[in-house]
Amino acid sequence: MSERVNRAYRLRRRPTGELADGDLELVEEEVPELGDGQALVRTRLLSLDPTNRIWMSDIRGYMPPVPLGAVMRGIGIGEVVESRREDMPVGATVSGFLDWQELCLADDSRLLAPLTVLPDPLPGPESAFLGALGHTGVTAYIGIDLAELGEGETIVVSAACGAVGSIAGQIARQRGAGRVVGVAGGPEKCRHAVEALGYDACVDHRADDWREQLDAATPDGIDVDFENVGGPIMDHVLGRLNIGARVSLCGMIAEYNSYNEGGEHAGGLTNVGQLIMQRSTIRGFLVLDFGDRFEEAIGYLGGLLGEGKLHYDETIVDGGIEAAPGALAELFDGGNLGKLLVRVAD
Amino acid sequence: MSERVNRAYRLRRRPTGELADGDLELVEEEVPELGDGQALVRTRLLSLDPTNRIWMSDIRGYMPPVPLGAVMRGIGIGEVVESRREDMPVGATVSGFLDWQELCLADDSRLLAPLTVLPDPLPGPESAFLGALGHTGVTAYIGIDLAELGEGETIVVSAACGAVGSIAGQIARQRGAGRVVGVAGGPEKCRHAVEALGYDACVDHRADDWREQLDAATPDGIDVDFENVGGPIMDHVLGRLNIGARVSLCGMIAEYNSYNEGGEHAGGLTNVGQLIMQRSTIRGFLVLDFGDRFEEAIGYLGGLLGEGKLHYDETIVDGGIEAAPGALAELFDGGNLGKLLVRVAD
Repeated sequence: MSERVNRAYRLRRRPTGELADGDLELVEEEVPELGDGQALVRTRLLSLDPTNRIWMSDIRGYMPPVPLGAVMRGIGIGEVVESRREDMPVGATVSGFLDWQELCLADDSRLLAPLTVLPDPLPGPESAFLGALGHTGVTAYIGIDLAELGEGETIVVSAACGAVGSIAGQIARQRGAGRVVGVAGGPEKCRHAVEALGYDACVDHRADDWREQLDAATPDGIDVDFENVGGPIMDHVLGRLNIGARVSLCGMIAEYNSYNEGGEHAGGLTNVGQLIMQRSTIRGFLVLDFGDRFEEAIGYLGGLLGEGKLHYDETIVDGGIEAAPGALAELFDGGNLGKLLVRVAD
Repeated sequence: MSERVNRAYRLRRRPTGELADGDLELVEEEVPELGDGQALVRTRLLSLDPTNRIWMSDIRGYMPPVPLGAVMRGIGIGEVVESRREDMPVGATVSGFLDWQELCLADDSRLLAPLTVLPDPLPGPESAFLGALGHTGVTAYIGIDLAELGEGETIVVSAACGAVGSIAGQIARQRGAGRVVGVAGGPEKCRHAVEALGYDACVDHRADDWREQLDAATPDGIDVDFENVGGPIMDHVLGRLNIGARVSLCGMIAEYNSYNEGGEHAGGLTNVGQLIMQRSTIRGFLVLDFGDRFEEAIGYLGGLLGEGKLHYDETIVDGGIEAAPGALAELFDGGNLGKLLVRVAD
């Protein structure tokens, strides 16, 4: 195949429920000659994130939905293979919105914010810059910080073994939480959460008695909820908040697959009234608002990693760009451990 | 009837749905001779508040539920008619938890916090000390303050003509809101909201097209929600929040009648995910946490009232203590305008 043929997933139809065949189309397209100020990036690793599903829908999101017909939006790491700009020399490793494709034609519009040239040599494994030392790690750091987690408090982290949750739980431990309780799917993940990630307990939300498990794991109630899931798990947590509790609302993956055409979706939280009774707060946040704190956060996380105090999981799916849609489905099924990536090229 | 016979409503059964016959029982009881440190208070006015229904249920509330068999909890104003304590002389007017009864035997346990001897002479109509210059007015003041309402912002106030909402809307106007939008039930209340209370617009949530009305009334989205209702109205408001919006969660009257035995209740908010997209916050609060700010709040509200800048509505139901259960039903039906009171005695 020619060096200048790009293979890209274009969004043809907005998903109804789970991503289905026909929602995305894999196309082959010739890349035009570079103009001034452009660079061509070959994607090596593509980050799979719950927010990918949000971007496919036309709900009122935090970024415009991916237009129908456009290449699917995604964050990745790649190498500059051609360049007509000085700040991105050939051979440089860059990170940012490379999208679901093999070759990304980068220009100023795409350089806005998160297309960053990474340091050479890298201070850690490349993949970590999409995970623990990238946007997911920073998300965990900011969410714990916003919750003002106090010494001795009980924190619950949902999606406890996920890319964000796994880091959030460990930061909570480092910051002096009294009790760090995870919620994850299946006994294997729960064991991993306790043994590798240092949770005091982990509740298996696939078990029939998960509510009782959660109650037993939080005997003194819940002071902080690092919420990644939403739905019945979040609702139950709301019912156990202590006075003055803080919910850092990072994600609600349980409902993203119901973000359907027209924006209507299922589900519903019934325990929001407990925020009054317990004088508690839910604060939604997005890591992209905290660009000025990435350096601080990555410095902190890199320090922990260097000291051997941060366990870091990743699941890298091989198979090239074709593997991306299946990997997203796996993310929503909870099949991965830690950060989920697709290796698009070596 | 003897001066020492008390007529009181005792809670016999926790309501399922709306308050029903048999949930409360009107009993006649001899009042014992006063002991040291006790005083006898004859209730003149009883405050009806949505929270009365919360106190009847056994959900996880902010105060223990009224025990079965106990006199129903309520706030009122009354006169000291017998006394064996110096701080409550006969003839003094007091305000606090007098409960749903004609005669309240007050002692230290009941004097904790809100049983207050009012100044003599009163700087305003007595009834206002259960409303605009009492706990409901302070609730409005604190809720606006916590939302950090900025100049030029759009605020929505649900239950816009209610005891709290009617004051909150006017404080918002005084504090420089750009657009103050109410939500109320029925065209008459909506007209009153605009003409008497100074709302820029008021949406009739009983109209079929209330969602479209609310959208049209908030063309620039919503920066602050002073939430008294919950349910579909709050859910729709969540869908129109601007980036950085704040929800002061004061009450969710729409769901209190579903606080049933066992704590399960219906309903559910589907738009909480918008808190992430719009980086917004819901903060639940209770006025009872702000005892140290009552003086400041009442000073502010009294000042506005004195300058003729605060319109104050009240609905006083006559008929003695027997009128209390029906008045509570009226509160939930939205039959009242402004503060709802029962005149227990002249």
